[in-house]
Amino acid sequence: MYDLIIIGAGPAGLSAAVYGRRAGLDLVVIEQTPMSGGQVLNTYEVDNYLGMAGISGFDLGTKFREHADKMDARFVKETVTAIRDQGQTKVVETVSGASYEARALILATGAEHTLLQVPGEQEWKGRGVSYCAACDGAFFKGRDVAVVGGGDVAVEDAIYLARMCRKVYLIHRRDSLRAAKMLQEKLFACENVEILWNCTVSKIFGTDLVEGVTLYHKQEQLEKDLAVEGVFIAVGMHPCTEAFAGVADCDEKGYLIAGEDCATTASGIFAAGDIRTKALRQIVTAVADGACAVTSAERYLTGM
Amino acid sequence: MYDLIIIGAGPAGLSAAVYGRRAGLDLVVIEQTPMSGGQVLNTYEVDNYLGMAGISGFDLGTKFREHADKMDARFVKETVTAIRDQGQTKVVETVSGASYEARALILATGAEHTLLQVPGEQEWKGRGVSYCAACDGAFFKGRDVAVVGGGDVAVEDAIYLARMCRKVYLIHRRDSLRAAKMLQEKLFACENVEILWNCTVSKIFGTDLVEGVTLYHKQEQLEKDLAVEGVFIAVGMHPCTEAFAGVADCDEKGYLIAGEDCATTASGIFAAGDIRTKALRQIVTAVADGACAVTSAERYLTGM
Repeated sequence: MYDLIIIGAGPAGLSAAVYGRRAGLDLVVIEQTPMSGGQVLNTYEVDNYLGMAGISGFDLGTKFREHADKMDARFVKETVTAIRDQGQTKVVETVSGASYEARALILATGAEHTLLQVPGEQEWKGRGVSYCAACDGAFFKGRDVAVVGGGDVAVEDAIYLARMCRKVYLIHRRDSLRAAKMLQEKLFACENVEILWNCTVSKIFGTDLVEGVTLYHKQEQLEKDLAVEGVFIAVGMHPCTEAFAGVADCDEKGYLIAGEDCATTASGIFAAGDIRTKALRQIVTAVADGACAVTSAERYLTGM
Repeated sequence: MYDLIIIGAGPAGLSAAVYGRRAGLDLVVIEQTPMSGGQVLNTYEVDNYLGMAGISGFDLGTKFREHADKMDARFVKETVTAIRDQGQTKVVETVSGASYEARALILATGAEHTLLQVPGEQEWKGRGVSYCAACDGAFFKGRDVAVVGGGDVAVEDAIYLARMCRKVYLIHRRDSLRAAKMLQEKLFACENVEILWNCTVSKIFGTDLVEGVTLYHKQEQLEKDLAVEGVFIAVGMHPCTEAFAGVADCDEKGYLIAGEDCATTASGIFAAGDIRTKALRQIVTAVADGACAVTSAERYLTGM
């Protein structure tokens, strides 16, 4: 029986591990992926985590994990399938058949990429369809590619790809971008980026590999094909809460309802990072959540 | 007329500067102190800012400022005396007689040490009375000193001082410490630390320099003198809101009332970091606030 189980090893989970160990809690971090760091790992460059200007996501994720290791946090590689909340005891069940028990839980599994849900998306995944420019961009050096979306990530991806690809099309369903203005300015300064406004992707096609997308222009009510070898989809995220069904209340998008103190509607269960309802999902807000969730968990454990 | 004025250059203000510049805002940071970094600068070692295990507070503060500089944030050295909220325009007045105008403000002046308010405290300040073990501890090498308080900072100070002083007395008014358990364990392992439970300081005395404190033991209702050459006071913090009187609503302790989005009760005025009402005041929660405050300010500025 642990004091605390942390599920997920992104910025929120790793920060919780550091704060939890410093608080003297007997804890274990359960992580599903081969490497800690979460979405950070797939980010080409992180430039807004204060004190580490222009660090690669991979390096930042590695530093995060090293910090938790330095605090002697225990890690196990398991895929969580369900949680049983027995009041004083929380039971975490995993694919391996093993179960783990703790007096408190911090859920920090984050969020993942939303699918476009158009024909060809699943079929061509890994053969031209990607959700991570930083991971896969290098495969498309000198080629023509498309990025789908209009937020920070889509614009960052387009800027990144413009450095190596011949031509980058940014396909956006609206007539203006949601991305930060500084990013937009950088994007507009890229000579090999063309923005296709008011367009949606209705199909991704190819033979062995992706050969193009079919676009639908809303105003003109017209479909046309665009020849590209890569399609980078950046249309948002959704929370990774599959294993937590019914454990605590969620909002309409599936995020666990929790405020700044990370307390969910279930006593002794805390939600930290992208998985909870919050206005701003950033590395630093996830890291702050790790600290807050541990503080709340400590108070819960000591009956304060 | 700026888009945004940030008052204060600790972790919250510097993070706001980074996020603000990335958002393309025309901004200025007004800082009162000779060096940016806030309370961090006076911290011997910071071990809980994820990714930077065991960094000195001075180095961390320096890295924070360098990050803001890299984003071309503008800084001015001024002491703010008052804010006039004229709706669309916010006017910041300073001691120099200069005034600055912006469409939005982020107040990030943090919090400062609470005084013990006992006879001798002001008189012996800088001559044996200190509020910062990391800054002044080295002056008391081989001497006997006292730390007053029972929270994280007091215990950290006692541990730090134990490395260099002959004897460290931790004077605490209760019979248990509020500090994190890991810190308590470290403290209890220090052979030259003695904890004086249920004691308060009623007087600090000396001739040219501090020579001791008068203690009052609550249960025994007894006063006795304790010979020490240094007195480190670590009994808490209060917000630095002198210049912001009446600008927005505060709680009973003087903290600006604002939630996770950093919005105060005054439209277009945001509070980030230790200055606002929050459960956990840590470097990382201040840095997160900087990001959240800018996001809220951006929304306000664009009329969203």
